[in-house]
Order: sequence, then structure tokens, then C-alpha cells
Amino acid sequence: MGVKALDYESLNENVKEVQYAVRGELYLRASELQKEGKKIIFTNVGNPHALGQKPLTFPRQVIALCQAPFLLDDPNVGQLFPADAIARARHYLSLTPGGLGAYSDSRGLPGIRKEVAEFIERRDGYSSDPELIFLTDGASKGVMQILNCIIRGQGDGVLVPVPQYPLYSATISLYGGSLVPYYLEESANWGLDVNNLRESVAQARFNGITVRAMVIINPGNPTGQCLSEANLREVLNFCHRENLVLLGDEVYQQNIYQDERPFISSRKVLMDMGQPISKEVQLVSFHTVSKGYWGECGQRGGYFEMTNIPPKTVDEIYKISSISLSPNVPAQIFMGLMVNPPKAGDISYEQYVRESKGILESLRRRARMMTDGFNSCKNVVCNFTEGAMYSFPQIRLPPKAIEASKNAGKVPDVFYCLKLLEATGISTVPGSGFGQKEGVFHLRTTILPAEEDMPEIMSSFKKFNDEFMEQYEAVKI
Amino acid sequence: MGVKALDYESLNENVKEVQYAVRGELYLRASELQKEGKKIIFTNVGNPHALGQKPLTFPRQVIALCQAPFLLDDPNVGQLFPADAIARARHYLSLTPGGLGAYSDSRGLPGIRKEVAEFIERRDGYSSDPELIFLTDGASKGVMQILNCIIRGQGDGVLVPVPQYPLYSATISLYGGSLVPYYLEESANWGLDVNNLRESVAQARFNGITVRAMVIINPGNPTGQCLSEANLREVLNFCHRENLVLLGDEVYQQNIYQDERPFISSRKVLMDMGQPISKEVQLVSFHTVSKGYWGECGQRGGYFEMTNIPPKTVDEIYKISSISLSPNVPAQIFMGLMVNPPKAGDISYEQYVRESKGILESLRRRARMMTDGFNSCKNVVCNFTEGAMYSFPQIRLPPKAIEASKNAGKVPDVFYCLKLLEATGISTVPGSGFGQKEGVFHLRTTILPAEEDMPEIMSSFKKFNDEFMEQYEAVKI
Repeated sequence: MGVKALDYESLNENVKEVQYAVRGELYLRASELQKEGKKIIFTNVGNPHALGQKPLTFPRQVIALCQAPFLLDDPNVGQLFPADAIARARHYLSLTPGGLGAYSDSRGLPGIRKEVAEFIERRDGYSSDPELIFLTDGASKGVMQILNCIIRGQGDGVLVPVPQYPLYSATISLYGGSLVPYYLEESANWGLDVNNLRESVAQARFNGITVRAMVIINPGNPTGQCLSEANLREVLNFCHRENLVLLGDEVYQQNIYQDERPFISSRKVLMDMGQPISKEVQLVSFHTVSKGYWGECGQRGGYFEMTNIPPKTVDEIYKISSISLSPNVPAQIFMGLMVNPPKAGDISYEQYVRESKGILESLRRRARMMTDGFNSCKNVVCNFTEGAMYSFPQIRLPPKAIEASKNAGKVPDVFYCLKLLEATGISTVPGSGFGQKEGVFHLRTTILPAEEDMPEIMSSFKKFNDEFMEQYEAVKI
Repeated sequence: MGVKALDYESLNENVKEVQYAVRGELYLRASELQKEGKKIIFTNVGNPHALGQKPLTFPRQVIALCQAPFLLDDPNVGQLFPADAIARARHYLSLTPGGLGAYSDSRGLPGIRKEVAEFIERRDGYSSDPELIFLTDGASKGVMQILNCIIRGQGDGVLVPVPQYPLYSATISLYGGSLVPYYLEESANWGLDVNNLRESVAQARFNGITVRAMVIINPGNPTGQCLSEANLREVLNFCHRENLVLLGDEVYQQNIYQDERPFISSRKVLMDMGQPISKEVQLVSFHTVSKGYWGECGQRGGYFEMTNIPPKTVDEIYKISSISLSPNVPAQIFMGLMVNPPKAGDISYEQYVRESKGILESLRRRARMMTDGFNSCKNVVCNFTEGAMYSFPQIRLPPKAIEASKNAGKVPDVFYCLKLLEATGISTVPGSGFGQKEGVFHLRTTILPAEEDMPEIMSSFKKFNDEFMEQYEAVKI
């Protein structure tokens, strides 16, 4: 028999090219150790519920009733569910003929897209068209779909921040395009410098690549910075001048841990800039129910909103959505609930506010504990996590540690993170999975471990790190 | 400004090439008419709940409890939920640390993959490995993922039955491969003739195409036929000889409406054939919670099982799954419930059996009503729906109807289906969306309208059809 189509040798090369570090070597090793009985602290993925964050009560009540609509006819329902959850479940069931077991329109339920549009209008002060909002099985699926439309082959480039969330590098590889990196400035708290963008585009052109799109992640993943309005304006001007589609990954818009730069959406900044730019820059913005104080990752709900995208293209995107029929309906309802939470005066309002504020304030404290913890370690420096869910400390590895990692056949930060995992059970992602400048090393961890566990985790990290540093600095050359 | 990346002119050509008729022109027109207030009977998609099928009670009780785990601590829970649903919810929550809001492993929860493997073992009599079962957001997503691994470019061909479910043609276009059609024999109740396969492969080779995989849909969509064991053996021998991966779309395995050919899985037939074939043919089988008597389409749950796929390839497929983090967790639990329903003696057993038998027996009667209805119409002939959810009658259009459709700029069956839609509100899919022999026309409808509505729908169809035929046969040439 010859080589078969699903033998490794004959697979689609683009599939083989894909790198995906968030669930890469470290994660696989951590899973093995867990199977062997070791206690693992999974901080490799922004997965808050897995680390003990409780779901918000109200949305779960509503979704439970939508899944079991026969409860609405039960005279005892009021003993288990508050009246506003019951009313809201009836509302969402009225939007979905056939209930949660029926495919919706491939773009998502019209009634929920309308609620998303109203949320965007309240947030930005500009009206939004539900026909240009598509619901998706999580933001990642939306990003993949848009990149699939943009990328025609290796000659097409997409500007991606480095360090970046590997969804972007993986998807660009999968669709056979070219990633064009632009570096964020670690020394300027991971700021975005437009000069770096210009250089990256010039370099790409020199290599024969047509840069067609630019990704921003705001707040940043893994870097945690929040972009200022002035910075966003520079980016939009740059996209306008260079004729780039802007992909605005804004999934962490609720996760802000400082007061100087509150979240501002790319779309609002674009609209504020006025014509001609506001009518010319093509923008796709992404959001999700997985992050914020919701953290409903497992439900897989998201949306993207398109600005200045021509109707014929919207039709093509709709057609591609149709192939897999519809996004999952329960998560569409979560999205409706997220953009339209209980209001003052509602029975569930106070509980909702208490729960969501509790989560957000704790995350803010944890961001600080983690940054301070890293900065107290030998050879570790770490920018403050202004937003999102991650800390991305730089680990200054002694030459002997780099040599040891080479002898072990590992990238130096992978070597360090593996040792950390074995010693402490803390499962991180090496900076090389996100991209970093040559000879500089990082790791990414989430700020999600429970607040009460944080001191122990940070002291266990410090103990490992400082011993590691001493061991490799002490080695005689 | 030049052409922008998301202008239609500059989109990825593969995206533009995609055809997807199930939600194509007919569906869009039906949606418009519905907005204008016309009553539409959507039989274009196999979407049972949208046409009034009630969800099974037990799984919905379990999932509601899993979504709202705080109910399990409520002393009143027993008033709304039976004890076995409560026990099962606790079981699934024990499998998913963090609950339904946490990402699972990208392949799905290990505990549920184990339940799927046990189901396969009971069904086929051969053990199954949970590590080779991946849970997905519906079967379509799984099919797309596997085809993405197989297709390297236009030179790679995939054998697809014609008429076919357009997921296959759409996905092959999207990934830039070549569809190699093999015709099913309408005169032999849509049987699969291996001679047609041989011819198709020879023709493809002549055109410089390497055929790498073959799709079977069993029971058939849109054609409704059930493949016999002997036929499956021929197919597997053919795949072995020609070195093809077999993709077994078995999503309708519960939907069988005759007793001569019960469902038999490709995998069982393959195992029964013994070595060397049983160890050499690469097979990927697909299943879903959307079909059967479940019809939980909106939940988006499915799985694929891999047989004889090398570990390095399994790793690659795992890596690609990781990019979008995890399939939605609630639908994973639906899958667990589907493969592991209440057992004799459980509190909910009788209700579960009553509900599921009720649905299946009604579908069987509807399959018969629909076939008989079509065969009573002028110029319509229709094979019996042996399985799945569709009827695919041949519509013998008079020459003058074909001429009229050409004048209207429409494909003849699109013309007919649009007229049917405008006259009756019945939304079908033209046969051209599935592929058919030159000069022969069909339409696809589901057998899903409520049983009590069926007589009226069929008589409304007959009235339209017979008048249409008389109108165009009466025209003087």
C-alpha cells in the first residue's frame, strides 16, 4: 500500500505548519502529570470557571429555563426561579421558534442580534445595524472565518502584534497566508508604536507580500496593555493610509484594571474621526461571553460586527456561515443576556451587581498581586496587567541556563516553564508561543487562580525561580 | 482608495466558489416572504424542532440542572426534577471540573468520550478507543476539519455521492480541492453501484486528479436510501484497493423507516472483514445530536471516530481542534445522554421510550405519506424514504416549463421551487443544489412537518404541481 491520505506524510502542509502553544508541549506535559496524580494549577488558558470562578446566577437561571421550557408551566417553578428570570426565559423563547433545539439563522437569532446592536449603540453612541452583526461559536470561530475570506495565499499578509495570541498565527498558517509581525514595546508597558507598524509593512512589501489586514488585541493578550484613544486613532489612520482591514479583538473589554485608560472601542474612535475615514476603513470587531466577569468559555458564544463592509461581501460571509448551519443557540442567549443584563429595579439586579463587581474587583487585586509577585523574583521583570487576564513577565535567563536548555534540546523558555511545572505544578505557556524579540524570554500566566490561593502560588513560583537562577548563575564557566 | 481586502473583488476566490443551496436563493426568498407576513413551511433544512417536534424531556432536565448547578442544593429541586435526572446531572458535573462554563479539552471531555466509545462498542461489537473520538460542535464542523487535513489543493479529489448533501461540495470548494462525483442510481432506489465509483475515479485520474477520499452518507441525504452490508463491503474493498480514506456520514443512523436493511456502521463492516483490510482502511465516522429522534440541532453537538489513523495524524487533528479551544460543553453532555439514555428500571425510562418511539413511528408514517403523496402527482416520481429525513422526488418538467425558466433566467428546478414557494409557502431546495444528472430535475423536502399537517401540505403541493404541469403542457409550441 502507498501513503494514505491521512498519513502524516501526506497531510495538508498548512495543517502541519500550524503552531498552537496555548495547548502545546507544556499543556500536554501538565495533562500527563495530572493523570499521574500531581496537582496542577492550569494557568495556560484564560478559563476562569476551571479555576473556581462561579458563574453569574441570573444568566444560568434563564438558560436553565430555556433548556427546560416545560418548567415554565410547572406551578412550583417560582420556588426555584425568580420572576425576572422566568420573564426573561419567556422572552428568549419567543425569539427562537422551535426553542434551543432548532437551528437558528446562520447569522444567529435576529432578536438577539438586535439586542447586541442596541448594546453597541449604548456603548459607543453610534447606531449599529443588526444585519451586520453575526453571532458565532466563540470569538475564535469568527476570527477564523474573516481571515479565511481575506487570505488568498502566501502573498497576503496580516499584521499581528508580537507578542500575540496564537489564534492569529495558527489561523494564518492554516489558511496559507503570511504573518507580518509588529513588535509591542515592552519598555513602554507593551505600547503600540506606529513607527513599528510602518517598518513592518515596508519589510513585508520588500519581501513581496501584500499586507491586507491588521489585528489589534485591546486589552492585550498576552501583554495586558490598554490602548489609548490617541493610539487607536493613529492605528485607524494607518489602516486608512495603507488600505488595511482592521480586525479589533476586543474580547477583554470588561477586563480593565486601571482608571487612566478605560476601554474604548475601535468602532467608536473610527466614528468619532468623521468622514471620509469613518466611511472608508473596513473594520471587524469581535466580542465573546468567555471573558469579562462572565467567563462562560465552555458555552462558546461570540459575535463580530462589520463596519464599512460591502453588502456583497456580507452575503459571502453569510454563505460561509451557512455551511455549518448555525452557531449554538444556548450561547446566543448568553450573549443576549450579557449585552442586556438585569437593570436597576429588577429582582435579580442587586445579586447580579454584587457577583459581577466581586469578580472584577478581585481580578484587579489579583493583577496587582501577580505583577508585584513577579517583580520580587530574581531576574524577573513584569509590566502591570492593565487589562485582560494575563501576566507576561520577562525571565532573564543566565547564559548557563540557556546552554542547559540547548543541551536538553529545548527552547530556553520552554525549558524554564517545564522545570517550573515539574517543581510547582504551575502550568504556564512559554513566551516563544506568542513571539518575542530574539534572545528575550517570557512566560504567560493567567491572573485567574483563586485570590486566596495567590500568595501560595506566587511564593511557590518565587522559590522555584530564585533557586533556578541561583543554580545556573552559580555554575562555573 | 484601491480595492480593499474585504471588497468582493478581492476576497479569497475559494470563498466565492462555494455553493450552498440549503440556505440559498429559495431560503432567502422564503425568509423575505415570511417577513412580509406569509406563512412559510420551512422544509429546506432537517430542523425538527422548528417544525414542532418536542425535545425529549430527560436530557433537557439534565442539562437544565447542569446549567444551574445551584439548584442541586435547593431543597425544592425534587419538586421539579426526577431523581434520575438529578443523579445524572451530578454525574456529568463530576466529569467537567469548572462546570459548563469552563473550556474542556479540545477533543471534548474525557468522560464523555468514554461513554461514546462504550456506545460504539455495544452497537458494533468491537471495542473503541476514547482517544480516537473527538467531540465537535455538530457533525459538519468535524467533516470540515477532516477535509481540511486531507485537501492540499486542486489536484486532490474527494469522491462524493450525487445527489449529495452540499456540506461536502461547499467544504471542498472552500478548501480548494476537487469534488469527484459518483452518481447514485435513482432507478435502483438510489443504490450505490461500485461500477460508477470505478468510472468516476478513472475519469478523475484522466483529469490529473489524485482521488484521496470517499464520502458515503448512510442513510442517504437527500436520497434516503439505506446501504446494505454487502454494499458497504464493496465500498470498503474499493477504498482499500484505491487507497482512499472513507468518510462515513452516519448522522441518520437512528432514522430508519424499513426493516429489510437496519443500520449497520461502516466500522462494524470493516472490522467484520478481518485483516488485512480491517487494519488498513482509514475511516472517519461522524455522528450528531441533531438528527435521530433527538433533533437537537440548535445545541450543535457531534463526534467523529477515527479508525486506522496514525497517532501523528491524530496529534495534528488535535492541534487544529485546539485553535478554537473546545467544542461547546452543554452539547457534549447532550452527546453523553444520547449514547447513554435512561435504562429499564430508571424513573424516566418509560417516558423516554414513549417519547422517542412516538417520534420515530410518526416519522415512519410521514415518510410513507410523503412518498405516496408525491407519487400521486402529475409528472412526479419518488423513491420511498428508507431512512434519514428527506424526500427527493423527481419532477419531470415539460419542455415549455424549461423554456419559461430559461426566459426567467433561472435553473428549471429553481424556477419550479420558487413558484411552489410563492403559491403554497412550502420552502424546498431545488435538486440542482445537490447535483443531479443532466436534464433531470428534483427537489428536496424534509419529512418533518407535523403529522397532522401532512395531508394539507401534500394536497396543497399536489394542487400547485398539477396546475403547473397542466399550464405548461397546454402551451402550444
